[in-house]
Amino acid sequence: MTITNKDKLIIFDTTLRDGEQSPGVTLTVNEKIEIAKQLSRLGVDVLEAGFPVASQGDFDSVQRIANEVGPLMVGREAIGKPITIAGLARAVPADIQRCYDAIANAPHKRIHTFLATSDIHLEHKLKITRDECVKRAVAAVSFAKTLVADVEFSPEDAGRSDQDFLCTVLSAVIEAGATTLNIPDTVGYNMPEEYGAMIKYLIANTKGSDKVIWSAHCHNDLGLATANTLSGICNGIRQVEVTINGIGERAGNTAMEEIVMAVHTHPDFFPVYHTINTPLFFRISQLVSSLSGMVVQPNKAIVGANAFLHESGIHQDGVLKNKQTYEIISPETVGANTVNLVLGKHSGRAAFRSRLQELGFGELTEEEFQIAFNSFKTLADSKKRVTEQDLLALLSDQVSSSAGENTTYTVKSLQVVSGTSFATATVQLQNTQTGDVLIDAAIGKSGPIEAVFLAIQRLVGKKIRLLKFDITAVGQGVDALGQVSVKIAEGSASSASSDSEDSVTETEDKDAGLNEATYHGHGADSDIIQAATKAYLNAINRLVANESKRILGERKVDV
Amino acid sequence: MTITNKDKLIIFDTTLRDGEQSPGVTLTVNEKIEIAKQLSRLGVDVLEAGFPVASQGDFDSVQRIANEVGPLMVGREAIGKPITIAGLARAVPADIQRCYDAIANAPHKRIHTFLATSDIHLEHKLKITRDECVKRAVAAVSFAKTLVADVEFSPEDAGRSDQDFLCTVLSAVIEAGATTLNIPDTVGYNMPEEYGAMIKYLIANTKGSDKVIWSAHCHNDLGLATANTLSGICNGIRQVEVTINGIGERAGNTAMEEIVMAVHTHPDFFPVYHTINTPLFFRISQLVSSLSGMVVQPNKAIVGANAFLHESGIHQDGVLKNKQTYEIISPETVGANTVNLVLGKHSGRAAFRSRLQELGFGELTEEEFQIAFNSFKTLADSKKRVTEQDLLALLSDQVSSSAGENTTYTVKSLQVVSGTSFATATVQLQNTQTGDVLIDAAIGKSGPIEAVFLAIQRLVGKKIRLLKFDITAVGQGVDALGQVSVKIAEGSASSASSDSEDSVTETEDKDAGLNEATYHGHGADSDIIQAATKAYLNAINRLVANESKRILGERKVDV
Repeated sequence: MTITNKDKLIIFDTTLRDGEQSPGVTLTVNEKIEIAKQLSRLGVDVLEAGFPVASQGDFDSVQRIANEVGPLMVGREAIGKPITIAGLARAVPADIQRCYDAIANAPHKRIHTFLATSDIHLEHKLKITRDECVKRAVAAVSFAKTLVADVEFSPEDAGRSDQDFLCTVLSAVIEAGATTLNIPDTVGYNMPEEYGAMIKYLIANTKGSDKVIWSAHCHNDLGLATANTLSGICNGIRQVEVTINGIGERAGNTAMEEIVMAVHTHPDFFPVYHTINTPLFFRISQLVSSLSGMVVQPNKAIVGANAFLHESGIHQDGVLKNKQTYEIISPETVGANTVNLVLGKHSGRAAFRSRLQELGFGELTEEEFQIAFNSFKTLADSKKRVTEQDLLALLSDQVSSSAGENTTYTVKSLQVVSGTSFATATVQLQNTQTGDVLIDAAIGKSGPIEAVFLAIQRLVGKKIRLLKFDITAVGQGVDALGQVSVKIAEGSASSASSDSEDSVTETEDKDAGLNEATYHGHGADSDIIQAATKAYLNAINRLVANESKRILGERKVDV
Repeated sequence: MTITNKDKLIIFDTTLRDGEQSPGVTLTVNEKIEIAKQLSRLGVDVLEAGFPVASQGDFDSVQRIANEVGPLMVGREAIGKPITIAGLARAVPADIQRCYDAIANAPHKRIHTFLATSDIHLEHKLKITRDECVKRAVAAVSFAKTLVADVEFSPEDAGRSDQDFLCTVLSAVIEAGATTLNIPDTVGYNMPEEYGAMIKYLIANTKGSDKVIWSAHCHNDLGLATANTLSGICNGIRQVEVTINGIGERAGNTAMEEIVMAVHTHPDFFPVYHTINTPLFFRISQLVSSLSGMVVQPNKAIVGANAFLHESGIHQDGVLKNKQTYEIISPETVGANTVNLVLGKHSGRAAFRSRLQELGFGELTEEEFQIAFNSFKTLADSKKRVTEQDLLALLSDQVSSSAGENTTYTVKSLQVVSGTSFATATVQLQNTQTGDVLIDAAIGKSGPIEAVFLAIQRLVGKKIRLLKFDITAVGQGVDALGQVSVKIAEGSASSASSDSEDSVTETEDKDAGLNEATYHGHGADSDIIQAATKAYLNAINRLVANESKRILGERKVDV
């Protein structure tokens, strides 16, 4: 891509903040750090690591990312500087101070503060006047500016704010020192023309608008997040707030891979260029999918399993004919061809280590490396060819269940007998906190998974509701790794205690669980019952670790 | 929605033609008929049922849909007429005649013929001149017009055709009697502004353009199919070619639910209205997902599992404040709230029958009803509350495995013993063609699924490669139905016969299977091993039935 009189498009990734607000997604600190490392390597410019004031866990994650990922230069040679670590903060001094404390050690750091500007929010939520809103925004930005040079301001609910008042607020925060202004399409219902027109109007009518970077933050409720963001770019946007695979609340955020590849394939259409290392897209997509439990549909643009299964020769023709204006995305460009590279059971440590490096897991400690190598050898014993996808699944598993963090229970052994009518499971667990080894059995009228899960509930002494259960085979073959994703909550299902079984009009309260804590877990094993057991315990370990640690519903913001 | 001086947006569904071209998706005739019935009830205007000349199987499906779904009026009272059945045909007399023969009995029928118009196609594929191209297009449309009144023409590869030549072709086919002109964004790389501008130019420069309906057909390679189609609507498009869940080749086609809900929520923005029965969207999305094996990601707009998991009160506010210009999609509007309605084990036949009617399965024969009722009772025995989602899964299963069609093998019994090191499965099958009962066992080093699948391979005497394996729980709870989707192909994996196990640079030939026949299968059961067994046999039954019946790769077209 030739870089001539174009602006650089700044990629602001919020997979770990807005993406983690996806219902039921709860990433551990280790998982966040792993994703952050990969985002740094991918060439992301700004990483929103979390909302430090929300909980001690959020603070710790942001701080560790600032410390451990903030200085990394791996894969960023062309960009020439490490990733900027951003933290989110409401427009109040305590939030901003807490945010600063979390990001303080990052070589490049940003405070991202936000305040609602729509009348409906000012009147009903904040109960302040427009004048007071301007004062608070200015005070927040001014205070943040005493701590860091790089300050981003988002007017929450910008789409429903009075546009001239919005210009007043934005002009004032520019004067106070804001360097990036982010315009959220909070409700996800804008048409591309409408969003583009709003950006154009704001830039034209905000004093000092040429001194700042304008940023887009769109939601996908109508399937238009990508189109709205691109329309923004055509109207002056130079930073895009995106997530890997487009994960996020409801229908999600804008997908980074779609924006980057639109710009990549249309160099003449957009006034911007990007510096993303696109061949890493496929791997990081799989990593985020596996750690978050948010599956990627096969017909997902760019990173779906079918995205590059071309049938006809038409695309070959296209490349020959019209290469300049119509650049094809080849599978190599987004790394879709590398996931099937294989290792065999005779592959040695050196080959394994070099493959880990290529996958971005080059910085394992010797102990972590040994655990990974052992898992690989075990898998290679039952599966002739171990692919990159398999390794990613094993490494994700290892990241999630790494010792010392969030691991109370581990499985020691498992036996299942299953026939056409019912199943019996015997499960042996170890409590790593106490050293106790526990064993019990249970039957499942609905098969082996029920039997195993009921046995585990007996062992951990908890009633657990299973909210979601998915298994996906990693790659092909009957010996493929099964990757299981579960979501659980504590407590009995209302249905279990109800006796009104003959009701035909009753509706299960699907929304009852909305504000309760839910935990996802995942596990990979070529035996799907083992994988399911690991995933279930992984989720229970998160539940045990996070109990009463975090109040959900308080930290959700629409910016 | 008020219908005043606006045009109706014609919904042309191609789930059964372009959607079925998704890699690995092979729907049986019964499955296609079930989807077609639901699309009729949804209020779709035109249903592209298939490509009759492609194979005898395609012809039979289109004919049965024309006969059985073509006359249906259920749910179409407001529209006032039954669905139009369309068939696809190349611009040659034999194709067009064959297409007509398939759709002849439908009360409303359309022939959709296509011919490439780009120089690259004319020179390299068709080896004809531009003049000859015009002649062929005119001849095809004229011939089709002698058979039916309703003729659609698509210039294949319109996006790379010379636009003035395109206008010449389109003017000529209008004069020959074409009533709909469909402009494919064949390559899926257009930006919304580009696609809209092309439509505008074509309408302005084609003679007689006001006499026909202009149609959009977009692909989602960059995540922009919805935006491109909407841009088309703003520039004169009045028919949209769409699929449920956006399934289709590569990254898929435009998703019907996204287009309809964009128009639905923006009555003042678009010059069109729609007559789709939107509360059926969620159910039909689940039906298509289950029958096609194409999962819907949780963050999919409109029909994803998370799409309506709102966190904050902000949307309530929005409704109060600004109802006219900012209409929220409530879960009810797309039927996302109904899937959890429950039946209990004491629910009788009447309650069950009325629920089936609501689900659009009101026309089962007495025998089919009895099978469905028995499955329901069995499930209700192990699961206190049977939801609509469960019923949909059971009914999908029944549609796929209905007796007489494609069913060679059924499972009689199954036993599995599984421990930490290996698993043993004993499987008893019946061959319904011969009446033989077969039994055998196998072990799986990678767990119970491998053991079961290897035992089945022994019983059916075939080497089968497993290409995909997914399990999704339907709803919540350890007793939830597990819905398994598999994809298989015949033959040994190259890896199984290769001894170069220590290769570290080898790449599995991911594309090797592209032009070979693959078969998907699905099965639902609350025991996931049983569900996996059903799915595997379902796929094997398709393989046995379709062996040498269809040549893949021949019937793929980019319109």
